Amino acid sequence: MSGSSFGKLFQITTWGESHGPAIGVVIDGCPAGIALSETDIQMFLDRRKPGQSKFTTQRRESDSVEILSGVFEGYTTGTAISLIVRNQDQRSRDYGNIASVYRPGHADYTYTQKYGFRDYRGGGRSSGRETIGRVAAGAVAAKILEQLGIHITTYAKSIGPVTVEEQDYHFEQIHENKLYMPNNEQAQKAEEYLSQMMAQKDSAGGIIECVVSGMPAGIGEPVFEKLDANLGKAILSIGAVKAVEFGAGMQAAQKNGSTNNDAFFIKDGVLEKATNHAGGILGGMSDGFDIVMRAAVKPTPSIAQTQHTVNIDGENTELVIHGRHDPIIVPRAVVVVESMAAVTLVDMLFQNMSSRMDRIVDFYS
Amino acid sequence: MSGSSFGKLFQITTWGESHGPAIGVVIDGCPAGIALSETDIQMFLDRRKPGQSKFTTQRRESDSVEILSGVFEGYTTGTAISLIVRNQDQRSRDYGNIASVYRPGHADYTYTQKYGFRDYRGGGRSSGRETIGRVAAGAVAAKILEQLGIHITTYAKSIGPVTVEEQDYHFEQIHENKLYMPNNEQAQKAEEYLSQMMAQKDSAGGIIECVVSGMPAGIGEPVFEKLDANLGKAILSIGAVKAVEFGAGMQAAQKNGSTNNDAFFIKDGVLEKATNHAGGILGGMSDGFDIVMRAAVKPTPSIAQTQHTVNIDGENTELVIHGRHDPIIVPRAVVVVESMAAVTLVDMLFQNMSSRMDRIVDFYS
Amino acid sequence: MSGSSFGKLFQITTWGESHGPAIGVVIDGCPAGIALSETDIQMFLDRRKPGQSKFTTQRRESDSVEILSGVFEGYTTGTAISLIVRNQDQRSRDYGNIASVYRPGHADYTYTQKYGFRDYRGGGRSSGRETIGRVAAGAVAAKILEQLGIHITTYAKSIGPVTVEEQDYHFEQIHENKLYMPNNEQAQKAEEYLSQMMAQKDSAGGIIECVVSGMPAGIGEPVFEKLDANLGKAILSIGAVKAVEFGAGMQAAQKNGSTNNDAFFIKDGVLEKATNHAGGILGGMSDGFDIVMRAAVKPTPSIAQTQHTVNIDGENTELVIHGRHDPIIVPRAVVVVESMAAVTLVDMLFQNMSSRMDRIVDFYS
Amino acid sequence: MSGSSFGKLFQITTWGESHGPAIGVVIDGCPAGIALSETDIQMFLDRRKPGQSKFTTQRRESDSVEILSGVFEGYTTGTAISLIVRNQDQRSRDYGNIASVYRPGHADYTYTQKYGFRDYRGGGRSSGRETIGRVAAGAVAAKILEQLGIHITTYAKSIGPVTVEEQDYHFEQIHENKLYMPNNEQAQKAEEYLSQMMAQKDSAGGIIECVVSGMPAGIGEPVFEKLDANLGKAILSIGAVKAVEFGAGMQAAQKNGSTNNDAFFIKDGVLEKATNHAGGILGGMSDGFDIVMRAAVKPTPSIAQTQHTVNIDGENTELVIHGRHDPIIVPRAVVVVESMAAVTLVDMLFQNMSSRMDRIVDFYS
Repeated sequence: MSGSSFGKLFQITTWGESHGPAIGVVIDGCPAGIALSETDIQMFLDRRKPGQSKFTTQRRESDSVEILSGVFEGYTTGTAISLIVRNQDQRSRDYGNIASVYRPGHADYTYTQKYGFRDYRGGGRSSGRETIGRVAAGAVAAKILEQLGIHITTYAKSIGPVTVEEQDYHFEQIHENKLYMPNNEQAQKAEEYLSQMMAQKDSAGGIIECVVSGMPAGIGEPVFEKLDANLGKAILSIGAVKAVEFGAGMQAAQKNGSTNNDAFFIKDGVLEKATNHAGGILGGMSDGFDIVMRAAVKPTPSIAQTQHTVNIDGENTELVIHGRHDPIIVPRAVVVVESMAAVTLVDMLFQNMSSRMDRIVDFYS
Repeated sequence: MSGSSFGKLFQITTWGESHGPAIGVVIDGCPAGIALSETDIQMFLDRRKPGQSKFTTQRRESDSVEILSGVFEGYTTGTAISLIVRNQDQRSRDYGNIASVYRPGHADYTYTQKYGFRDYRGGGRSSGRETIGRVAAGAVAAKILEQLGIHITTYAKSIGPVTVEEQDYHFEQIHENKLYMPNNEQAQKAEEYLSQMMAQKDSAGGIIECVVSGMPAGIGEPVFEKLDANLGKAILSIGAVKAVEFGAGMQAAQKNGSTNNDAFFIKDGVLEKATNHAGGILGGMSDGFDIVMRAAVKPTPSIAQTQHTVNIDGENTELVIHGRHDPIIVPRAVVVVESMAAVTLVDMLFQNMSSRMDRIVDFYS
Repeated sequence: MSGSSFGKLFQITTWGESHGPAIGVVIDGCPAGIALSETDIQMFLDRRKPGQSKFTTQRRESDSVEILSGVFEGYTTGTAISLIVRNQDQRSRDYGNIASVYRPGHADYTYTQKYGFRDYRGGGRSSGRETIGRVAAGAVAAKILEQLGIHITTYAKSIGPVTVEEQDYHFEQIHENKLYMPNNEQAQKAEEYLSQMMAQKDSAGGIIECVVSGMPAGIGEPVFEKLDANLGKAILSIGAVKAVEFGAGMQAAQKNGSTNNDAFFIKDGVLEKATNHAGGILGGMSDGFDIVMRAAVKPTPSIAQTQHTVNIDGENTELVIHGRHDPIIVPRAVVVVESMAAVTLVDMLFQNMSSRMDRIVDFYS
Repeated sequence: MSGSSFGKLFQITTWGESHGPAIGVVIDGCPAGIALSETDIQMFLDRRKPGQSKFTTQRRESDSVEILSGVFEGYTTGTAISLIVRNQDQRSRDYGNIASVYRPGHADYTYTQKYGFRDYRGGGRSSGRETIGRVAAGAVAAKILEQLGIHITTYAKSIGPVTVEEQDYHFEQIHENKLYMPNNEQAQKAEEYLSQMMAQKDSAGGIIECVVSGMPAGIGEPVFEKLDANLGKAILSIGAVKAVEFGAGMQAAQKNGSTNNDAFFIKDGVLEKATNHAGGILGGMSDGFDIVMRAAVKPTPSIAQTQHTVNIDGENTELVIHGRHDPIIVPRAVVVVESMAAVTLVDMLFQNMSSRMDRIVDFYS
């Protein structure tokens, strides 16, 4: 089988290969009555589009979305929403030895092992272009969250060795630099680092952080459908993500209960927490405070250096990948992480609606 | 709703509260023809049982499992397997102010927000005892993996500040110390650290590592049902886990493509990798090499120190938790991580069976 | 795999064999705050219990239910509810040649073909006792429906050739006769027919009808999760059911649009329908009028006559089934049909809650 | 939510409205390595296309399919297959009072109740055009079944009062008449009946029968995912179907065990059944004999007669539906029933693959 669907009540199904005719997504379970236009979705897609800076591929794609169903007179109807983006730069080209070798760090070998052969054109379904469907769906999910007063802020916390510490966050700067870092100065340093990597025919990784504010408490379903479990799956399903953390994350392992526990207190009649090491999630449910999540993204595996590898005939060989590739995945993946978070939050908000009998009675009376 | 089921084809459904009459699991989708006895399952349960060392709760439980269905004349029949463990130490007791305050670091507040009230006896469903069902199911999954030549090794890599580095691993020592560390000397240091924490009425966290060997290549379903996405969800669904990593994990963010890519080569006719930064997973599918995964576990939130918190009437208060609690969750959670990994691997192995038409034709001819 | 779970948000997972130690069900997704006791469930179980009349098996079972989880201080907690019924009459007995032959009309042959062998004791998982879990879950679902003003009436419309026509329905008589027919006189005739069948060592079939009143309009999810599609699956999943109908049912095939369409009209400000050939479902959604559904139940396959069949060694043989078997399945299956309907309705009511953005905003504000 | 997906391992997700820009389906879980072209799919679509006879709508649609993903160099790749059919006849038109009244027998009222408003153009998502996605997916499923030696024959058994009895079946005639009946003479009578109905501005219903040959035994998952339960759901999810039967179906209710049981016997070393009242399904699993299933289809609700109904403002009104509508749904629905059967069978065949440990070991060795 293949697992192209995500979500239980708000379900997205993506399809499409890098060099096929089109890429798209079907969103099922979107409520009726939401104002939705192609512009709403295009805004999200433009954040991952190629050509935004010198650190992105030269592939020419406008990534223009078309709504094919589920919207009538400007509003969602409650039925399945089909979104499509035509691939423009799908010209027949010389794939060199790409078709016959397994690129290190790529899924060439595993796809071949699973399916017996693979669509070698630009990575096929394992291409970064696969995320177009996710982002289009994320735009729709964001419209829902907006109406519920929930907001997601996502940014590059680290680019290679350059990290923005929490005290230096300036969220208003995220969209002022090409790398979506919350600090323009650090972004400048990161750009320099990336230029250096490009000169060395190398690539870099980084960390994407995501903060959700306005989330009501109690969202997430014990015990397997925990909010963090589902967010974690959503983020780990994005290619190149190798780790996911919540709140204190890996550092929690080094802490002690006395300092890691977030003390509750009441201030002006409102429940507060002294700290947020939990990252807004306790027992797999939102606690009403900011949800804080981080994803570690590996360096782009496509590098211009000559690499040792193996071909499909089982022989040792050398590989030189032509064309210009993004020296870093992180900036364009920021909106992908945000989209997957949005899709997951909407799904969990919907799942929560049947947890209390009194609220169900209210709903139906 | 609540999310007490995990898995698609090999599906487990757990139930039971810490101080209810029993705890159990239903395993659905277990193939017919596997020799299975209560002893097989008990071996796993004994690894998480209380009372194994001075670092575990004083609660007296034999955690004896009974098979109620799905096994006939010593073999699984292919139908649902129901396993039950009766709670022994469920005597009515004085819960002190536990019933009326929100313990920091616990799910008391979020359960109450979600459901309107909660079963306050010993954490109810958010208790560590909930994992009994997972471990019982993990024992069954392990029997399946065994027949496929797949083996999982799980251990405590870190206890607080004490970490065993890869070059110091002695896997045969894992079951020689109470902390399930792969190095007895480091385990000794960790025990000293834990004793110190207990003296200070404090607790510690740690890191659990899991290595899967013998996994065939190509397991995992693009694009949302990736192997790492599902393993990640499985592990993050365990209470107290705050982060999950694969291969280089968080460190991948600091690396460069030239060093992070695992070069393929052929040696003696066999495909090998020069390194395994990918942790055995490429493009969301197993690559045939060891799968390496780590989980960060937070320090036990129940500590004997006085803590500031809030009660259910919205007033500031102080909390003193009585009774002896595990100063660390890690050692008993080792088998829980292994169990969730086993359950996930089996499910993904089954899902993979319909990926190629030629193999399906073979199967049915 | 095996498919022991039913439902998406209100999910039941049943387990247990006829002659194993116990039978049970886990109900996941039951909302918090419902008053629930063993008595509530026992009332449903008693309707399918053996020994209610001379037309039921002589097996001695009290079918007493125990609640193992998910209820605290008399109310559901929102977490998984585990219900168990111990089998009492599971003594080792002489199964004669049951173990080695395929009984006609039973699942012996298909179970063996699927799983390689089978639990031959009393039909194992294909026994009518499997429905205990369904009925226990149905009792819980009925509690939910009750709070929403939804009521289900179920009865035997036909027993063999004896049918109660709609104009002769007296719903208050359903529980006044052993056959659960809505007309005591017809029930008397049916009893005579059944006595005759028993004398002839034969068995009979019948039709169960189910009427749901008080259902709000708009429940059911286009296009595959239609209300009738899910109810149909629920009913067809009950052993021995060979057909399911809604409203005019099979007769709709003979009708014309002009007479089959149910005309809408307004009377005293309320929308009414002149007829209900649709059986309360239009386009897969409830239309607010009575849902009417029928299930055809085949005659009990276990008959005392000598039958020709084949043994597991592939040889022709004769079969004589010993012991007394119900000459008809229908009366005890009435509550099973009602239970499966209840479980399905609850699930669909919950799924409907996220269909409109305005209602979601209301819910969360 | 909305339920636009069907299937567990072989999953189809359909989308699109009658008068939107396009209609389509995403097929997820199709194995790699199947030769698949647009011609394969077009052959199925042409069987439900309008304009095949005088008994079909005048809407001009070529219903040409385009493959957008999941096929590379003529073979399925194992990833999601996206199929699209552009609507051609979607011109803006005068919908008369369709937008403001509830058509009897249609889903106008229920859609409005559920979603708060509806896409009134041609029925939106409740239009018969919704089935295009099902049929396109059915064509792909049929390719899989073909390789497994499984064949489905589907036809109109009854058109209004004209029924073809089993002894008069001539399967080779099914494609020789416009009504897809297995007997040309009866088809002629049915055509006359339909002409008469059209003259009377009325419509007719009928019965579609489906016979599956070559099915291996043991397919179907106890106890809720029975083969008949899933086939039943699949068929009942098709608009206008009001009942579904297997084997003896509704008639089983009138039979006795002695005559309804299908006796097994061995002939020339092969297991045979004396009769097939079970319709090829015992205990929810295929028994290796022909699966026989029937669906009752109601008469087309759109008739040219003046009908009494209610408008969206809650007032009594009269409705005249303009344009020519199919006087019968059955002939074009034949391929829809076949398609849903095919999709279900493939899914259940895949689910069965992990039922026996010995076969799993074989598969992976």
